[in-house]
Amino acid sequence: MEHNAKREWPPALVDPTGRREAKPRDAGLTMVIDKGLGLRAFEDMIRLAAPYIDVVKLGFGTSALYPEELLVRKIEAAREAGVHVMPGGTFLEVAVTQQLVDAFLDTAKAYGFTALEVSDGTIELNRDQRSALIVKSIDAGFTVFTEYGKKLFGSTIEWEELARTVEIDTGLGASFVTIEARESGKGVGIFDENGECKTDDVEAIMNAVPNRHALMWEAPLKSQQTELLQALGPNVNIGNVAPEDALSLEALRRGLRSDTFHLGKQAKV
Amino acid sequence: MEHNAKREWPPALVDPTGRREAKPRDAGLTMVIDKGLGLRAFEDMIRLAAPYIDVVKLGFGTSALYPEELLVRKIEAAREAGVHVMPGGTFLEVAVTQQLVDAFLDTAKAYGFTALEVSDGTIELNRDQRSALIVKSIDAGFTVFTEYGKKLFGSTIEWEELARTVEIDTGLGASFVTIEARESGKGVGIFDENGECKTDDVEAIMNAVPNRHALMWEAPLKSQQTELLQALGPNVNIGNVAPEDALSLEALRRGLRSDTFHLGKQAKV
Amino acid sequence: MEHNAKREWPPALVDPTGRREAKPRDAGLTMVIDKGLGLRAFEDMIRLAAPYIDVVKLGFGTSALYPEELLVRKIEAAREAGVHVMPGGTFLEVAVTQQLVDAFLDTAKAYGFTALEVSDGTIELNRDQRSALIVKSIDAGFTVFTEYGKKLFGSTIEWEELARTVEIDTGLGASFVTIEARESGKGVGIFDENGECKTDDVEAIMNAVPNRHALMWEAPLKSQQTELLQALGPNVNIGNVAPEDALSLEALRRGLRSDTFHLGKQAKV
Repeated sequence: MEHNAKREWPPALVDPTGRREAKPRDAGLTMVIDKGLGLRAFEDMIRLAAPYIDVVKLGFGTSALYPEELLVRKIEAAREAGVHVMPGGTFLEVAVTQQLVDAFLDTAKAYGFTALEVSDGTIELNRDQRSALIVKSIDAGFTVFTEYGKKLFGSTIEWEELARTVEIDTGLGASFVTIEARESGKGVGIFDENGECKTDDVEAIMNAVPNRHALMWEAPLKSQQTELLQALGPNVNIGNVAPEDALSLEALRRGLRSDTFHLGKQAKV
Repeated sequence: MEHNAKREWPPALVDPTGRREAKPRDAGLTMVIDKGLGLRAFEDMIRLAAPYIDVVKLGFGTSALYPEELLVRKIEAAREAGVHVMPGGTFLEVAVTQQLVDAFLDTAKAYGFTALEVSDGTIELNRDQRSALIVKSIDAGFTVFTEYGKKLFGSTIEWEELARTVEIDTGLGASFVTIEARESGKGVGIFDENGECKTDDVEAIMNAVPNRHALMWEAPLKSQQTELLQALGPNVNIGNVAPEDALSLEALRRGLRSDTFHLGKQAKV
Repeated sequence: MEHNAKREWPPALVDPTGRREAKPRDAGLTMVIDKGLGLRAFEDMIRLAAPYIDVVKLGFGTSALYPEELLVRKIEAAREAGVHVMPGGTFLEVAVTQQLVDAFLDTAKAYGFTALEVSDGTIELNRDQRSALIVKSIDAGFTVFTEYGKKLFGSTIEWEELARTVEIDTGLGASFVTIEARESGKGVGIFDENGECKTDDVEAIMNAVPNRHALMWEAPLKSQQTELLQALGPNVNIGNVAPEDALSLEALRRGLRSDTFHLGKQAKV
């Protein structure tokens, strides 16, 4: 057995899977949803877990409610650590409804947001309107995450439509397409009313979508994250992760937690 | 479409309902329950969300367990931001049981608490005892929130008794009467064992109580907050809100979140 | 009635049970599980609640994922306040699987951890292997908490085996034996699939185990903590407590919360 008197865990203890990719990365992204962290809590999270967080979403329209200076500092803290930061998609949907998209984009830019979520979870957008929003956002300099799916309880996923959406959205320049699961993770998309993952649907989607690396799965519950990691491996893209779960999700990805322990064991054999 | 290069969201994006009242206000109050935040987490919350929080309750008897200096600084931080701060009602009930009400009031005053919750969720108080506690608390300089309802699982609301209680309590000088729902929001008062809102009861109560603005509804779960906002509008008084939900509840009040999006749309038409 | 103009609650309001023991103590320990707190949130917790926390566990393998300096400072903050700090048992199980136990112990020592959790919740250890790990950990200077039980959903407790395990583990020098309940508290050990406590099992265990003070019950849910306090009194050892619940658990122990109010009342009569 090895001896090591330094403050450095052996690599096999840091990632027993040996498969986890580092940032910047094309796969294995984690998107955190921040529903209203204070400044020091946000900085705490960034200092602790920036290597494990690719993008932070300020949920819903909360971006509208911050003291100006505080929002500026949160965005700066994320940017300096190489973490994307974007307002919630619902906020852009409010702007569409209020016919204030240009003002929204200008203000988001002035604040320093680096990314936008383009969604139609609550409002109706036809394909042309969706495409125009994507193009306009990219032209304004934002990285674009689009979202597929309705927030309505009981709404399901039609994978052929999803496949077409991924193809068109990414063709227009969107970086990722998020599969809607709300912040509760129940009764929407691939999750049933108890929040359990409909694994058949996940497989069907993966088979239907050519560019599967562009998919990001909203999965707020640990049980959902576990199911996705078991089905799709350590480098699946997971979104709507609670800030306090950022570190433990990374442990889950690496087989450092009971539920995914076997991912590490397999890597060793 | 408007252009806006400054760090200022257009007003229609900050409050699509156009109906939200600012502090100090008689309606639309939010009461946060703090079960044991550290000092910097508490300051974080105040700096982020003071305009959206009217009163903070230090839950149960936790006030007894703080290091002295730390409790003093939390109370100061709230007061300086125009936020009421009070110990939990159960703590006063302990003082009643231990026959230490005067010492309780003196110490609460010495710490700087600005408000008190007068309740009988666990102990039995007759009307005279309740009235005496209200009067004594007001005489000692506190703003008084009384509470109606038992904490016992399965306890329900008798609205005629509630109406009388509201009339007498506010007649004695109490500012608000809170409807008990515990910190779990399940199986108590207007919430069934799954935490779902018994909407008929809410309507019956609103019809029975003349001064409905004096009512504050404990509603710790987001689904409950949503149901109350949909039934009673953006300016319903909501209590026992988790600190981490303060900002997202305000987004919910203003139609900046999918569940209440229509409140904003209606305001526009 | 007494008067008291100082910032000091009367003793009967601070502990209505009159039975709560202070640190360092042999009974009534609280073990907090930290799944990824930032540095200032951790310091906040220690400053607020160090008298009520005996040991903090950095859950699972999260210890492997910290920036070095940040982990050092968390551990120092705990030690300076007289709080034990240990990595999660699963992390040691990873080390066993990867044949890196010595490196694990050396690095844990270099970081300043004061305690270790020796468990076989996920891997299989025979009695000799378990004993060797306990002895090796004690020889390396750590306080040892062992754990009894599997993390597998539906796993139960065989109390004769538990009694033997407690006898041997403590005979080898382990300080406490924790009863596995995972971080969810559902469908494992003494908790059924709804997280409700199988009280008969608790009684059977207490009768079967000679040194009952050596037992620590993982009980992450407030309802579980309440049931254990009602069954076993204010000074039962409770583990896997969420950081944000540390203060409110102490209120629960002392009868400063509705669910255990009667513990205080009984003390007075």
